[in-house]
Amino acid sequence: MSFKYNKITIAGMGFMGGSLGIEIHKRKLARVIKGYSGDIDRLKIAQHKGAITDYTTDIEDAVKYSDIVFICQNVLSIPAKYKQMYKYIESKTAVTDIGSVKGYIVDSIRNTDRHRLFVGSHPMVGSEKRGIENIRQHLYEGGVCIITPDKYTDPKKAAVIKDFWTTIGMETIELAPNVHDSYVAGISHLPHLLAFALTNSQKNIIKNYKNVIGPGFKDTTRIAASGEEIWSEIFMANSKELIKKTDEYLKEVRRFRSAVDKKQKAKIVSMIKNSRVLREALNK
Amino acid sequence: MSFKYNKITIAGMGFMGGSLGIEIHKRKLARVIKGYSGDIDRLKIAQHKGAITDYTTDIEDAVKYSDIVFICQNVLSIPAKYKQMYKYIESKTAVTDIGSVKGYIVDSIRNTDRHRLFVGSHPMVGSEKRGIENIRQHLYEGGVCIITPDKYTDPKKAAVIKDFWTTIGMETIELAPNVHDSYVAGISHLPHLLAFALTNSQKNIIKNYKNVIGPGFKDTTRIAASGEEIWSEIFMANSKELIKKTDEYLKEVRRFRSAVDKKQKAKIVSMIKNSRVLREALNK
Repeated sequence: MSFKYNKITIAGMGFMGGSLGIEIHKRKLARVIKGYSGDIDRLKIAQHKGAITDYTTDIEDAVKYSDIVFICQNVLSIPAKYKQMYKYIESKTAVTDIGSVKGYIVDSIRNTDRHRLFVGSHPMVGSEKRGIENIRQHLYEGGVCIITPDKYTDPKKAAVIKDFWTTIGMETIELAPNVHDSYVAGISHLPHLLAFALTNSQKNIIKNYKNVIGPGFKDTTRIAASGEEIWSEIFMANSKELIKKTDEYLKEVRRFRSAVDKKQKAKIVSMIKNSRVLREALNK
Repeated sequence: MSFKYNKITIAGMGFMGGSLGIEIHKRKLARVIKGYSGDIDRLKIAQHKGAITDYTTDIEDAVKYSDIVFICQNVLSIPAKYKQMYKYIESKTAVTDIGSVKGYIVDSIRNTDRHRLFVGSHPMVGSEKRGIENIRQHLYEGGVCIITPDKYTDPKKAAVIKDFWTTIGMETIELAPNVHDSYVAGISHLPHLLAFALTNSQKNIIKNYKNVIGPGFKDTTRIAASGEEIWSEIFMANSKELIKKTDEYLKEVRRFRSAVDKKQKAKIVSMIKNSRVLREALNK
């Protein structure tokens, strides 16, 4: 049997890394899927669940001879991990990540010798679920993956990474790292911030009258159950863009607040209609 | 065959009224389900879809001899509709509504002769879908219905209304009208306001980069596709409570904004963790 890849490395065995391993494994894409982590128990669970074929806690062993190395860790630790591993990486290897912020990562890696091997990736899929316990196939399939090569990136590595995401059923879009960060601040990081804030602001009702809470509130706050370690790092790494988008959003909230306060029905109708038409377009 | 009710009237043939009719019809609860509306085409569609057994555009014909009259209209028009109909209503009849605001309705009805027949209801179910075209069974079943009798309400009428909602599979909760309005401002009206504002604030990305938008944004804004006529009236009728809840929410958003701006990781972690724990409790 011939495999598309001889060896793939997944550094970091959480929900995203583990689910990626299962996808590669089930599709029989790689002869070796090497899991790397400092946590041996987690590696054992990952192997048991079919996410990896083999594992190691040694970074040289992890990345050597790999076709692709995926760094699947929280965003703030990705550059440090790259700096630990890049001296063992061969020039044939392409390295990517799955982090939700790209400018911070690319800027931090830029000063290493071998930054041309690295291409940022952001598969726009996920779950409020976390951890190796919840990993599953089909998380990535059908989703969109943004890749962020720039003028420093080896175009051959970008092509390898793009081809990989396409192979597992994702649509790929190329954006500059800073453009990526601006977009996802608005469509992902800001929605998380406001879902967290809404949930916290309704603490008393959630604690005391849980059964009056209907599907509207539950959908709006689904992502408010996301993990604090992952999301605090995303907010930190993309703080500038997140603040900008938050301020634009606050302006809209204040426009609603003012129209409601002044009981300007026509204005409220028009603002809600704008929203409805935009939101309906997302279902098409 | 014996029916639990001889005649039930549904005044207003939209998504909520029509879906209620189908539920009553499929459960064979009433000999006559009389649809009332000014729009004859809508009544014909409702009958064709099995939401009503019979219809009329005459208000006296609609409500006379009814066991229960449901006013299923937008909130601002409910008191006026009650004032049009109450002189034809017999004392055996109980009247209720399905409006999302209760204080405004109950206060407006209070100065009529026969306000004791009226008991406010708010079934906490719904959809961003609208209109008679989208009606369906099982909308109400399994949901929670808040009923808002107060010291002016005939307790026998309250019992009839409570029994009805229980019969179609809803859990009922009694709250005073103003307590209801405060709670739903926080768990329903505010989430709509912020989903509208979020959607409008991301207009450019929705228009130009629709395919990068993932499931998190879509869930958070699902209710942003709700109808402007219904929701502008809810915002108007519950403006005082909605403003209060919006201000509490804005305080939370500003706390996040400030912690992100100052890169206070421990504070961000703690706020997200509070949200996660609260939101996870809603899934249990």
